[in-house]
Amino acid sequence: MEPMDQAQARVWLATAVEEARAGLAEGGIPIGAALYGADGTVLGRGHNRRVQDDDPSMHAETSAFRAAGRQRTYRGTTMVTTLSPCWYCSGLVRQFGISRVVIGEATTFHGGHDWLAEHGVEIVLLDDPECTDLMRDFIKTNPALWNEDIGD
Amino acid sequence: MEPMDQAQARVWLATAVEEARAGLAEGGIPIGAALYGADGTVLGRGHNRRVQDDDPSMHAETSAFRAAGRQRTYRGTTMVTTLSPCWYCSGLVRQFGISRVVIGEATTFHGGHDWLAEHGVEIVLLDDPECTDLMRDFIKTNPALWNEDIGD
Repeated sequence: MEPMDQAQARVWLATAVEEARAGLAEGGIPIGAALYGADGTVLGRGHNRRVQDDDPSMHAETSAFRAAGRQRTYRGTTMVTTLSPCWYCSGLVRQFGISRVVIGEATTFHGGHDWLAEHGVEIVLLDDPECTDLMRDFIKTNPALWNEDIGD
Repeated sequence: MEPMDQAQARVWLATAVEEARAGLAEGGIPIGAALYGADGTVLGRGHNRRVQDDDPSMHAETSAFRAAGRQRTYRGTTMVTTLSPCWYCSGLVRQFGISRVVIGEATTFHGGHDWLAEHGVEIVLLDDPECTDLMRDFIKTNPALWNEDIGD
């Protein structure tokens, strides 16, 4: 697998940001994700659904993974997410052998992406101000909901 | 939290085994789980649903977690599972601060429970022959499906 070009990563991140904004518009937690195949097509996309579905298991990344349906292999796939993946979503990436994670930001929350890098996952951290602003504003207005979502 | 009594752990394991057998009867992967509250009540229970729902995100533990709905805290809760939790499910336990994991067996698959123990989760490994037989028979008959479920 070729190392990822930052400009390409930003194009893919836009899909995850769209998902985050859709979640926010529904009254949910604004985190979005998309799983891209090795050929650059979107296999699945989704956003956090804790509030909308009362479903604590649907983080953005698990939602995108679920939407992609059953796959024989995740080799060469990329999980694109607006926020550094928590341990739950990092565990998903490691277990299923997702090859790369593109991350919008890790400023408002630092999950398990260093651990993923140690275990051979390519990490592209974009430090995107739009993603940071989305989460910063949300956490400020909804601290209890955010703490619930990360088990704090 | 008091350290868990093995006899009590075996009583709780029976709930997870019931779930695993229900999954097998549906034509699914025979792994079951239940999330017990600090007060000893079942908050949620479930089994692997990859085959039944074409849903790769529903491992036994995530299924039980989902069935429990939104919880303000997981302090004092116990995840009971027939099989050592994979990285995805171990990440779930760590992120949400589930206090204890009761495991039927870790012979047919060794997941992330040592990592959880290092991070302060109480691990009760029962080495239960019924759980081992369930998985051994299943893997022997359905190796491709099993490999798909663990991303191998």
